[in-house]
Amino acid sequence: VGKLLSLVPIASCCCYVNLDTRKTIHSIKVGVSLVLVSLFYLLNPLFDQVGENAMWAIMTVVVTFEFYPGATLGKGINRGLGTILGGAMGVLTAIFAQTIGGIANSITIAILIFVSGSVATYFRLVPSIKKRYDYGVMIFILTFNLVAVSGVRVEDPVWEIARQRLLTIVMGFIVCVCVNIFVFPLWASDELHHSLVTTFFNLANTIQGCLLEQEEDAKFVTEKEKEKESSSAVNNKFSLCNSVLDSKSKHELLANFAKWEPWHGKFGFSYPWEKYLKIGQVLRELAAFLLTVGNCLQASKQAMALLKDSHSIQLESWEAIGSKVSWALRELGDSIKEMRKLDDDSNSISTKLKAAKAELSLVISMSKVSSLDNEEVLAIASFVLLLSQVLDKVDQLVKEVDELGHLAAFPTH
Amino acid sequence: VGKLLSLVPIASCCCYVNLDTRKTIHSIKVGVSLVLVSLFYLLNPLFDQVGENAMWAIMTVVVTFEFYPGATLGKGINRGLGTILGGAMGVLTAIFAQTIGGIANSITIAILIFVSGSVATYFRLVPSIKKRYDYGVMIFILTFNLVAVSGVRVEDPVWEIARQRLLTIVMGFIVCVCVNIFVFPLWASDELHHSLVTTFFNLANTIQGCLLEQEEDAKFVTEKEKEKESSSAVNNKFSLCNSVLDSKSKHELLANFAKWEPWHGKFGFSYPWEKYLKIGQVLRELAAFLLTVGNCLQASKQAMALLKDSHSIQLESWEAIGSKVSWALRELGDSIKEMRKLDDDSNSISTKLKAAKAELSLVISMSKVSSLDNEEVLAIASFVLLLSQVLDKVDQLVKEVDELGHLAAFPTH
Repeated sequence: VGKLLSLVPIASCCCYVNLDTRKTIHSIKVGVSLVLVSLFYLLNPLFDQVGENAMWAIMTVVVTFEFYPGATLGKGINRGLGTILGGAMGVLTAIFAQTIGGIANSITIAILIFVSGSVATYFRLVPSIKKRYDYGVMIFILTFNLVAVSGVRVEDPVWEIARQRLLTIVMGFIVCVCVNIFVFPLWASDELHHSLVTTFFNLANTIQGCLLEQEEDAKFVTEKEKEKESSSAVNNKFSLCNSVLDSKSKHELLANFAKWEPWHGKFGFSYPWEKYLKIGQVLRELAAFLLTVGNCLQASKQAMALLKDSHSIQLESWEAIGSKVSWALRELGDSIKEMRKLDDDSNSISTKLKAAKAELSLVISMSKVSSLDNEEVLAIASFVLLLSQVLDKVDQLVKEVDELGHLAAFPTH
Repeated sequence: VGKLLSLVPIASCCCYVNLDTRKTIHSIKVGVSLVLVSLFYLLNPLFDQVGENAMWAIMTVVVTFEFYPGATLGKGINRGLGTILGGAMGVLTAIFAQTIGGIANSITIAILIFVSGSVATYFRLVPSIKKRYDYGVMIFILTFNLVAVSGVRVEDPVWEIARQRLLTIVMGFIVCVCVNIFVFPLWASDELHHSLVTTFFNLANTIQGCLLEQEEDAKFVTEKEKEKESSSAVNNKFSLCNSVLDSKSKHELLANFAKWEPWHGKFGFSYPWEKYLKIGQVLRELAAFLLTVGNCLQASKQAMALLKDSHSIQLESWEAIGSKVSWALRELGDSIKEMRKLDDDSNSISTKLKAAKAELSLVISMSKVSSLDNEEVLAIASFVLLLSQVLDKVDQLVKEVDELGHLAAFPTH
């Protein structure tokens, strides 16, 4: 996987293996699992063992086979726990109701179904339970209900049904897990890791895009072309920033799955996925700033062009600052991508950022503000202030990534 | 519902009925439905009609009973369609395989299961299908598989099984829908409507919070208290803005459910939910701007205080602009909340916003920029530019809400 990761250029697409290829792999894996689990029905020796309960194996595969191994494991374990707990309580209920007998039997069961169903449903709505055990509680309700009411009817002892059903569910789960984990696994942890790294590079590209646009404006182009070009460029920038802003729910989902994938070689046990979410949050705030910078640049376009022509302010040093920021973001992204600690001795990124900040205050103090008109002052001042905000955020990112390196015990490289 | 909506003060909580109350209502409703559907098992005359298939009714209730009627309807219809289609194709496959007979029978079925499972799984990964029909395709795979493999074993004609199973699923679905829609319904459309209105008010409060903070700073407080107070205030503002920024996935989910709730009195058929999502997007962009404004204010705090003391610039007019913006947001929120068109004749909001913009340019030109030092120029200029960005966004919101009024045919009031 590591080799694959390094072979594919990052900028070209958002996924290390083509998304379509991964979808195809997943689809074929589902097909194979379904055939494997159908063999319980199709082959006589197997069917003699499990009988009609083979149905539950098929159901387990259809319902728990997910795209990411973490999601499958989570669902499978939820399903197992829910079935065991619900089955056990269902058997107890059925036996208890049988000792009462008569019409009271049915009434007791109805009351217990109402109480357990209501209470369990309320639990499903508690955010912390909903996040990881929603599916397990649902299966608990289902199994409890089925076993409790079956107890009224069936002649076989109820625990025999429960045992057989559990056995087939376990077999279905084993098929799921084996196919999902051992055949071309599509890890959620890889996906989250890659998505975070890509976000760093995307934001770096956005900043560089801003700079390029500025330079292009300096060249001679007709007014109309400029208008058209820049508005599409801004839209592009916006779409990247907006996609970063909207990444929260996707990242939380992936982190949830990644926690179920402990034996995935690259990351190991107790990998600090929470830190990934924290870094993602800071990146989203940075994206919000960049969105505003883009808007401001767009709004004060003419003033900026005038400033450039007048040469009263060294715009070159701005560009140097911008490229330093995007370099820093790339370095941070690389450090996470290659899972190595940031260079501690020179502390190079921090020092460069500090230098950039010093330069920034130089830009504004060197300028003869009084010689500019209002529009120009607006443009330059807001740009400087926003840029210093961006620098602060990047500084925060450096700290977070440094902490990640310590938490995850990256090698110093 | 409309009465309830107006009784509860908006600012106090994010939900028009206390969320805990709604959770309790939902839990009790699930309990009642489970008991109702268990009667198929518990009452002899009903059990004689449906037999062991009663299991499927219970399963339908557990799986499709959702918090919002729209979600239940969507899942139920998906389940129905998936079952019918999967059942029909399963029966055809079983009959076709029976005509072949022998060992080829099982092989044919295995191949068909593989093909249908893979293709259907691929469809599940297509975004547009995943959004609305994911569950239906899953049920299709499940039903097709079960019916196809059952055909090998059972002596009864397969369509008899399919018919009975479908019947019990329909009964389970009817119980679900009746309890969900006719007993204290918790509409997703109400929730989305309310959430959008609340966002307007939240952003208005955020802006007013900024102003208040500014005024408080002017009063005499010790430095430390100021520091503490303002940092907590900024965090509060951030949390509101951040919750707006993260609202996308929630809104999309609710809009998806709301589309399944056509006979909900207040909104009627073909209500423009897409427009709600569009307005939500603009509100998120506005929130990103406000986040940056808050940060800039925080960063240039001292300079602002100096400006205030020096009286060289009329800060009062800024505050007037800020309160105009928050007034405009409240008006827009009210117009959506009460579902009435914006006043067309005077076009009051637009004109006031234009006036605010004119005032804003006045502020910067009135100021004697040359008499200020660099820090102060930075602070004032960026604040003005950002505020003009905010005004632009609010202007866009006015247009969007106006369009919503036309699309949804709100009365002119």
